Amino acid sequence: MKVTLNTNVLTNNNVAAQYNRDLFTNSKTLVINMMSSPGAGKTTLLEETVKALSKKYRIGVIEGDLSTEIDADRIRALGAQAVQINTHGGCHLDARMVAATLQEFNLDEIDILFIENVGNLVCPSGYDLGQQHKIAVLSVPEGNDKIPKYPQMFMRTELVLLNKVDLLPYLDFDVPTAIEDLTAINPESKLIPVSARTKEGLDNWITWVEEAYASCAKQ
Amino acid sequence: MKVTLNTNVLTNNNVAAQYNRDLFTNSKTLVINMMSSPGAGKTTLLEETVKALSKKYRIGVIEGDLSTEIDADRIRALGAQAVQINTHGGCHLDARMVAATLQEFNLDEIDILFIENVGNLVCPSGYDLGQQHKIAVLSVPEGNDKIPKYPQMFMRTELVLLNKVDLLPYLDFDVPTAIEDLTAINPESKLIPVSARTKEGLDNWITWVEEAYASCAKQ
Repeated sequence: MKVTLNTNVLTNNNVAAQYNRDLFTNSKTLVINMMSSPGAGKTTLLEETVKALSKKYRIGVIEGDLSTEIDADRIRALGAQAVQINTHGGCHLDARMVAATLQEFNLDEIDILFIENVGNLVCPSGYDLGQQHKIAVLSVPEGNDKIPKYPQMFMRTELVLLNKVDLLPYLDFDVPTAIEDLTAINPESKLIPVSARTKEGLDNWITWVEEAYASCAKQ
Repeated sequence: MKVTLNTNVLTNNNVAAQYNRDLFTNSKTLVINMMSSPGAGKTTLLEETVKALSKKYRIGVIEGDLSTEIDADRIRALGAQAVQINTHGGCHLDARMVAATLQEFNLDEIDILFIENVGNLVCPSGYDLGQQHKIAVLSVPEGNDKIPKYPQMFMRTELVLLNKVDLLPYLDFDVPTAIEDLTAINPESKLIPVSARTKEGLDNWITWVEEAYASCAKQ
């Protein structure tokens, strides 16, 4: 299914999000919107995720950044299809940008599409892109106070990947406190500790993705 | 000089920024707007800065966050005057919020006012708050690609405090590359490596602040 964009959907974010959602549902593509601060490690996590999943699944990635193709190039180097969106100053992706970008994918040939949002712990959480799952990446060096200080992000996501746990010995981050703070803001949310660098905990994240995929799998 | 706010200045960010600037100039208060990603370490740097400067200077701090008084409480614990602004979802401070907050200070009794912006590497850079100096804090765990990927921030700031250099042995961050990338985007900008944790390099930052203060000093 090659998409030709009806430009009417570009008038409004919610209209575009619903348009994207229908495309994802009809093509049975699992779509995960990943959000975090700059430098939390989304792209490195995605590199490891693509490596782990690409033997069984066809992976696509939409990369959101203010500038550069650095991230899309990193994903393409692993053989996955990646399309870069540059927001030129915009602090988040919106569903219209994603809708326009979907023309570059054949969704019938993508099992799992990751959308890496612009590095920003504030703006992206307010924009529905049509994805089935919104997740946050939080990294150990950012500190324990980020969950109470940025509640909108953690209220609106169903999973926190706590990345860079290999740095726990060198920093004051306390994982049980992070889980408590997360539960206080969003009792439904889960936290999975991982390190994209040492690969610790990545199997738990990969299992989470595979279970999510099972609920919308292509025949 | 106790300020009573003329609400006309709240109609427009640039009007409010000019109003703030006039107040800062007339009271000879040095004002520094600090911006960074969430978790780069602005508040910990400010704690060390307040400790280093408060014997010689009267310090005030405006703290910007979506939620909580955590940061203002940390600064008050050191005996400096701190006022918290909560943006309730807003991704940056603007000059109107700062103008309204200035009523809580007596600027004649503040030598140096630090404004800690909302943790965000995108939005805050576009808003003039009336400050004399805009600086960015970048932390080693965020990675080398942040300068090319967030050019608007680094184009619009005159100094980068590269924080958490105590983590350099555990990470791949390359300081000469960061300086090269910064110079390519903004040849006027300087980079000072620091660690708020080990206090490495803090003397260079304190010297920078004192030199900036000398150019607008109170009699």
